[in-house]
Amino acid sequence: MAKKERLTTESYKGVRDFYPQEQALMNYILLTMRGVAERFGYEEYHASILEPAELYKAKGSENEEIINDQTYTFLDRGGREVTLRPEMTPTVARMVAARRREMGYPLRWYSIPNLFRYERSQRGRLREHWQLNVDIFGSNSLASDAEVIAVAHGVMKAFGATDSDFLIKVGSRNFLDSIVQTLNLSGEDAKKLRGLLDRKDKISNEDFQSDMQALGVAAEMLSPEAPPPDVAEVLGLLREMGVENAVFDPSIVRGFDYYTGVVFEVFDTHPDNNRALLGGGRYDNLTALFDTEPVVGVGFGMGDVTVRDFLAVRGLLPEYLPRTKVYIAVAGAPFVKDAIHLSTALRKENVASALDFGEKKLSDQIKTASKHKIPYLIVVGENEVKSGEYTVKDLETGDEKKLSKTELASFFLHVN
Amino acid sequence: MAKKERLTTESYKGVRDFYPQEQALMNYILLTMRGVAERFGYEEYHASILEPAELYKAKGSENEEIINDQTYTFLDRGGREVTLRPEMTPTVARMVAARRREMGYPLRWYSIPNLFRYERSQRGRLREHWQLNVDIFGSNSLASDAEVIAVAHGVMKAFGATDSDFLIKVGSRNFLDSIVQTLNLSGEDAKKLRGLLDRKDKISNEDFQSDMQALGVAAEMLSPEAPPPDVAEVLGLLREMGVENAVFDPSIVRGFDYYTGVVFEVFDTHPDNNRALLGGGRYDNLTALFDTEPVVGVGFGMGDVTVRDFLAVRGLLPEYLPRTKVYIAVAGAPFVKDAIHLSTALRKENVASALDFGEKKLSDQIKTASKHKIPYLIVVGENEVKSGEYTVKDLETGDEKKLSKTELASFFLHVN
Repeated sequence: MAKKERLTTESYKGVRDFYPQEQALMNYILLTMRGVAERFGYEEYHASILEPAELYKAKGSENEEIINDQTYTFLDRGGREVTLRPEMTPTVARMVAARRREMGYPLRWYSIPNLFRYERSQRGRLREHWQLNVDIFGSNSLASDAEVIAVAHGVMKAFGATDSDFLIKVGSRNFLDSIVQTLNLSGEDAKKLRGLLDRKDKISNEDFQSDMQALGVAAEMLSPEAPPPDVAEVLGLLREMGVENAVFDPSIVRGFDYYTGVVFEVFDTHPDNNRALLGGGRYDNLTALFDTEPVVGVGFGMGDVTVRDFLAVRGLLPEYLPRTKVYIAVAGAPFVKDAIHLSTALRKENVASALDFGEKKLSDQIKTASKHKIPYLIVVGENEVKSGEYTVKDLETGDEKKLSKTELASFFLHVN
Repeated sequence: MAKKERLTTESYKGVRDFYPQEQALMNYILLTMRGVAERFGYEEYHASILEPAELYKAKGSENEEIINDQTYTFLDRGGREVTLRPEMTPTVARMVAARRREMGYPLRWYSIPNLFRYERSQRGRLREHWQLNVDIFGSNSLASDAEVIAVAHGVMKAFGATDSDFLIKVGSRNFLDSIVQTLNLSGEDAKKLRGLLDRKDKISNEDFQSDMQALGVAAEMLSPEAPPPDVAEVLGLLREMGVENAVFDPSIVRGFDYYTGVVFEVFDTHPDNNRALLGGGRYDNLTALFDTEPVVGVGFGMGDVTVRDFLAVRGLLPEYLPRTKVYIAVAGAPFVKDAIHLSTALRKENVASALDFGEKKLSDQIKTASKHKIPYLIVVGENEVKSGEYTVKDLETGDEKKLSKTELASFFLHVN
């Protein structure tokens, strides 16, 4: 080693190390999301985290703040400006635009990419997270808007949530546009109104009301007797899909510039976690950045950190159970080969097993099994080798069972 | 949209977009690797692609070339030097060192991270790839060296390779050291010898022989009558594990500085693809970078691109089959709600189904199903709604079958 200084074992600031128990939770989250998306007929796509910086710059002036202040953007050695993707929608729009003529529409796609944000000021906020992205391309039918909402609902249910644990709030950019038209608001005021609605839950009601008054928007305009037609249709279709906990909320507008129609957010109804769990909407012009032939789209994103918080608050976190079913300890170094034979035989029968190499005394070997939370233990020693019978010990209950080599595999394949 | 220029739909140079068929192949590769590692009792870990640049700089002067010329390294907005990880071993060493006292050893870990290399000169070479990393920490037993080789062998077999398709070549840094000691080579010459051996397959035999002569290394020294003791023991243990296609090869030394004992590479025996498919070895001092208490390790890495090439050359690429079992088309817009009911019912029974929203004529809806290679089609129209009987069409064979709504789910769950 050329340098002698000691390095820190800490990860880079704002990102996470996933030790096996944390990775197991991540895998649970990923598999649950994946399972629901695939039941709805969505196909998985993926892309690199590296994107040309222009992809985000072109999205409109409003987002330039994000690209300038909140992304990892750097020059590569060839002088190209590269960004670590802060969201997936521009990437998926790019991919769809690239092969728009070959695709079969409606196109149902999902992905669970990692996304990067560099926020200098907010301590403790993560700079990398994973996000389920679910999108339908090429359909103008409001049934596609309803379907992506139904997928979000399905993911929540698959995590163990009940309908009363969360509420789906549906709004519409068209509704916002109608207010803007009625009041003949300037472009700037229209933007202010949208920003104000988007921040509604983050500011006091008094501030909200006074800012609304300044824009000349009366409270009644935001509380129409009936939902606007697009939202009404989506709510009706959701009921056909078995989704009951969705309501019209005129204040749902979403932050991004690119939304054009129905928008929605899913809120946790728990008083300790009352915030948006996910959000999305229709964006009909995004692929037009690449070509004159736009492909319409509607979709949503749902982050892993938000899901973790929800699961924790609701007591829905799964218990950790390693994939390894049995730990094979040895009563001494001479039995390592016998342990190897046993583990090789178990693996052939698809039983996940780990073995000790006999470098420590037996009690320490058993501690290793316990530290890894492996549920069963077998000790290989002279008796076992001679008799061909093995004692399987349940490390949680202490229960023991004697089984022959041939009985072992079927035993482990039938316990959970 | 603020700016009107058209963007390219191409990805950033040297990285890949994974459209669903490509992602399905990637998932096959990932699942196959994962399945074998878990059967051997390895637990999955993960980390961010972002690492402090120091992590790679500290590894020794030889690797400084890599960090300087071949990595994505940039300053973040806080002035920290960040690197997109070019390999996983430093990261896993960092993670193990951080919790070295809590771990149960032998510690078996795997991960399939994406890795980044920025090579300016080589056109067509990928800048991002995925790599299975399999490691055992905390064991000095040569059984652990043998086991990680057995995992590599198991992965190859799980991909459908036969023992004659590949050859495991095992060498040892100790063997190299013994030559260095016998000849009393200087540190510089020792490094030259290692580099020469590492490049053996990439240069002509004449060049190799003359360079060896220049170092004073006789050909016989590299062809000992018997393998060195550590390699001999590993080969013996491999046979106990059912691995027969492993041989001693004195020229296997591996490029990285940090290897300290047994090293190995797996070679494709196909004449069109005669190259290393994966490689690894023992590295006993790597965690010492972080602390005075080193944790010994042995492991290997296997890249997705190499696997793809191997599968292609050997005709082992799996056929694409989407997760979606059935496409539900509609004989007109009035039947969309009925199609929604049918797909909702199928999903409840875990049948992955996609439906059309009736925006195109029926023949175009069927084309959508075919483009996505969805195996079965159901058309929902007046007859189906009235009778409750649906015709399931196999889109490949054209075969049709009439089934009631309740029979559909069990039909789809039993076809592959």
